[in-house]
Amino acid sequence: MKVTLSALDTHESSFTPLVVIELAQDVKEETKEWLKNRIISRKKDGGAQLLFRPLLNKYEKETLENQNLYLVGASRIRLLLGAEAVGLVKECSDDTMRAFMYGTRHNFKGFDDDNDDFLTMAERQFIIKHELESLRARDEKMIPGYPQAKLYPGKSLLRRLLTSGIVIQVFPLHDNEALKKLEDTWYTRFTVKYQPIDSIRGYFGETIALYFGFLEYFTFALIPVAVLGLPYYLFVWENYDKYVVFASFNLIWSTVILEVWKRGCASMTYRWGTLVMKRQFEEPRPGYHGVLGINSVTGREEPLYPSYKRQLRIYLVSLPFVCLCLYFSLFVMMIYFDMEAWALDLHENSRSEWTGILLYVPSIIYAIVIEIMNRFYRFAAEFLTSWENHRLESAYQNHLILKVLVFNFLNCFASLFYIAFVLRDMKLLRQGTFDDYLELFLQFGYVSLFSCVYPLAAAFAVLNNLTEVNSDALKMCRVFKRPFSEPSASIGVWQLAFETMSVISVVTNCALIGMSPQVNALFPESKADLILIVVAVEHALLALKFILAFAIPDKPRHIQMKLARLEFESLEAFKQQQMKHVAENLKEDWREGGKESAP
Amino acid sequence: MKVTLSALDTHESSFTPLVVIELAQDVKEETKEWLKNRIISRKKDGGAQLLFRPLLNKYEKETLENQNLYLVGASRIRLLLGAEAVGLVKECSDDTMRAFMYGTRHNFKGFDDDNDDFLTMAERQFIIKHELESLRARDEKMIPGYPQAKLYPGKSLLRRLLTSGIVIQVFPLHDNEALKKLEDTWYTRFTVKYQPIDSIRGYFGETIALYFGFLEYFTFALIPVAVLGLPYYLFVWENYDKYVVFASFNLIWSTVILEVWKRGCASMTYRWGTLVMKRQFEEPRPGYHGVLGINSVTGREEPLYPSYKRQLRIYLVSLPFVCLCLYFSLFVMMIYFDMEAWALDLHENSRSEWTGILLYVPSIIYAIVIEIMNRFYRFAAEFLTSWENHRLESAYQNHLILKVLVFNFLNCFASLFYIAFVLRDMKLLRQGTFDDYLELFLQFGYVSLFSCVYPLAAAFAVLNNLTEVNSDALKMCRVFKRPFSEPSASIGVWQLAFETMSVISVVTNCALIGMSPQVNALFPESKADLILIVVAVEHALLALKFILAFAIPDKPRHIQMKLARLEFESLEAFKQQQMKHVAENLKEDWREGGKESAP
Repeated sequence: MKVTLSALDTHESSFTPLVVIELAQDVKEETKEWLKNRIISRKKDGGAQLLFRPLLNKYEKETLENQNLYLVGASRIRLLLGAEAVGLVKECSDDTMRAFMYGTRHNFKGFDDDNDDFLTMAERQFIIKHELESLRARDEKMIPGYPQAKLYPGKSLLRRLLTSGIVIQVFPLHDNEALKKLEDTWYTRFTVKYQPIDSIRGYFGETIALYFGFLEYFTFALIPVAVLGLPYYLFVWENYDKYVVFASFNLIWSTVILEVWKRGCASMTYRWGTLVMKRQFEEPRPGYHGVLGINSVTGREEPLYPSYKRQLRIYLVSLPFVCLCLYFSLFVMMIYFDMEAWALDLHENSRSEWTGILLYVPSIIYAIVIEIMNRFYRFAAEFLTSWENHRLESAYQNHLILKVLVFNFLNCFASLFYIAFVLRDMKLLRQGTFDDYLELFLQFGYVSLFSCVYPLAAAFAVLNNLTEVNSDALKMCRVFKRPFSEPSASIGVWQLAFETMSVISVVTNCALIGMSPQVNALFPESKADLILIVVAVEHALLALKFILAFAIPDKPRHIQMKLARLEFESLEAFKQQQMKHVAENLKEDWREGGKESAP
Repeated sequence: MKVTLSALDTHESSFTPLVVIELAQDVKEETKEWLKNRIISRKKDGGAQLLFRPLLNKYEKETLENQNLYLVGASRIRLLLGAEAVGLVKECSDDTMRAFMYGTRHNFKGFDDDNDDFLTMAERQFIIKHELESLRARDEKMIPGYPQAKLYPGKSLLRRLLTSGIVIQVFPLHDNEALKKLEDTWYTRFTVKYQPIDSIRGYFGETIALYFGFLEYFTFALIPVAVLGLPYYLFVWENYDKYVVFASFNLIWSTVILEVWKRGCASMTYRWGTLVMKRQFEEPRPGYHGVLGINSVTGREEPLYPSYKRQLRIYLVSLPFVCLCLYFSLFVMMIYFDMEAWALDLHENSRSEWTGILLYVPSIIYAIVIEIMNRFYRFAAEFLTSWENHRLESAYQNHLILKVLVFNFLNCFASLFYIAFVLRDMKLLRQGTFDDYLELFLQFGYVSLFSCVYPLAAAFAVLNNLTEVNSDALKMCRVFKRPFSEPSASIGVWQLAFETMSVISVVTNCALIGMSPQVNALFPESKADLILIVVAVEHALLALKFILAFAIPDKPRHIQMKLARLEFESLEAFKQQQMKHVAENLKEDWREGGKESAP
């Protein structure tokens, strides 16, 4: 269902709605009343202290079941207090990045008591989402009106409402005016230009801005490879030395671009405040469950779940399951290759029209099976990762991505590896294989893993990404429901995935060069010598790669200095706080003493 | 020169001397007077505010030129303030580790206003050293009486005094009673037992305690390898499968012991306070020079030196120099092998007594050349690292160790590699090669790099280390001059070196197994297939190794939690500090406003 509600579509202006809660059709009045109470009642009474009202829009009444849509907003002060609670980091007048606090609000750049621009709409919606998710059960044993929807102290109400089908969805509203403005600078003009990453961040949040930033960076980074690859394709350069040049360039390139991205990403997220934001000190993600207790780091009351239990779940259940799926996937691939060989055999023997059609059957069956497996696997991966019970959203995401990634990598590249290294059929390997399904990671795989065989891969990738930027932007703005902003400091486990891919690419490129007929012709008498030389070169390249990655600092120096400054100031403040405590205790002792000695 | 002065040897008890400064014979009175003044005058007048007096010991007058030996000590309060200045971390009554502050001294475990035991002697001496090193030139243009010993604002006085030969040495005093006590529990009894690591730390400081801790840990860790290696030696097990078992065990072993050490080391240094101690916020090491300015992290005045200049020095001078030396060393080794082949040839042709002696000549020449090169290289490495101008002592040490390590690694193992993989002479490789010169790193190299060829290496290493513990302990206590304590949180670049070695050992072990006649016999027709299989296994093992290292957290969870707690508390304190500032400013504004509106 696509919802086109926006903040301006609502007539009542008692508050600016930011988030919509859609309830199921048959929700009991009792439940609605209880939910409303929990949302609007004060913090100290266990509420979220937000504004809440049903959507009463005559204009849209015909098309939407309005009685089940509720708008959530918050007063200005409530939003600022929420910004402090979620730990948003903003720039101060003295150019430092500081955790926002309501009490020190006038220290921050761009803060004005009469102006709402200080928090971006994405931030305000993130705050509302956080406050809704932080609503936890107190003494309720169940959701009123739904005895089967059990609650226990500390259970996230919103999560229980969602899992028991009472709340259908919670989503942030679009702001048509801001969206139009963003679109104008982003993708409507058909010229190649930088994207307005900061504006994207303002509207969609850091995670999505980082995706587009990475997409843009990666596309630009691909250009040298694309340019270098062209002559290899045009002049069919297949000599040994030219191959080596291309593969070596590729190796250095893939290492350096990933390191440079890390640095650029740190600069960007420092500016946005998310690099400094300590998300590990936040409250746990709503799906996190456990016995209510005191977090030993923050001292706050929250559900606790022992880490060793999570480790056991990961290593004894999730890991074996993933390995099993990978094995099964390889097994299916082998059957596919057997079927294809059988069909080819049949066709060559009879050469009828019927067997000609039969040739396509294995591929079709394989594609269908892979798709089914993929969907099943993704479902299982989500279930398992959720069951692993990670405290932080980022840990949940990283574990989920890692699972999905490994499987997709195997499915996309296993057949290529098999063709390249077992069948050794370079012609088969050279069929282009781009389709909409491949994401950047797989693209990077094609560009880096088999660079010598596909010299055009990078050029295609550049062309693809130039259109991808626009189509992804269009999807974000017009097709998909607006997502909640998610502050993030880096591309997370993707960085690791890309780095792993670039290590694997050293191995594959060396192997491909070693297998080329030209190189083999240089060692007519001894294949063993050839392999030894290739392996030695490969080890040297890998060593070089690790040294490069080690020698290039992950953060630019000025960012390192600023982070060190922040750490230093915090430690100093902590010392002063301890001093103050001692002074206060002394004063207290002195007063007590005074009282006692008084007659 | 061995100096056996101890704190108790001095008769005057006006203060407890901790550190001795030895001046040159001909130092002018004017200089002595100036130095004394700078040491005893108050902090705010640019002095060190320490106690200082010549050693007037009748008993030792005959043997020592006492008029040139000066004792330095400090009052109790001065030492506690110094502990705060160097950022010593101690345990509080609530079991947390906190930076010591004089103001909060009563919060710390074991603190007593009437007792001096709170700071260990090593810590007190470290504080005195730090204070002496922090004495920096103000407006002096030269050292009084020595116009050639130039000074500029911010230059460390002690360093200039040492480099211009006015001060011969600065060293901490022994405490005979405490030393005796330490020795009794450490090495006098000839039973195998745990060392008193905490007492060693108390007397010699963290760096030396970590060395002995690592020596002990490593020796215990070697025992399984030693036990497993024995039957390989006794029964001359040379089958393929048994080899593989030993090599695989070795691989897992070397990865796991290094990861476990990291965790144990973190627990230990957390207890000692050095894991939490922020040495990067300290004042720079005395050798550090630059233009006096404001450190942007700590806000303190200190010499500043741009990081890019250091990088240039490292990459454009030090790195090429090291590479050149490595190349030269390899070149010398090749000449040695040529000479040896020539001598052997000559001997086999003539078989005279004279040529029999000649057989030893290449080895003797090579040993002498290597020793000369080694000494020259070490001198050059120290010069270059000092010239790189590192701000922190740890950075200086790490860069120096790395340089020396690479060179020693090459010298010790290059010939073994050459024998193993080029000459392929396993008999030659099996000659034992232990001598006093080899340190633990090289021992680890012998055990891990060529485990299959030397099954007894680990057993010898264990035996060697059991005696090494005692002889090293004896050297520390009785032979060497007492070193200054150096707080450290880990074994620094050695960890990296050991990890690198264990990566290399995967490669060498796989290669050795691949080269064994038994394995070769399995692939009589195709050597290429054999190599491919070995390389595939090697890559799988390397991947496993990296995954293992990645999956095992570097710090135990309870330490991670405590560090996170500290960070959280610091950030919270920083927030409160900012709030306080705002409140104070408001109060100030209000007062100002009140004044203005007053008639």
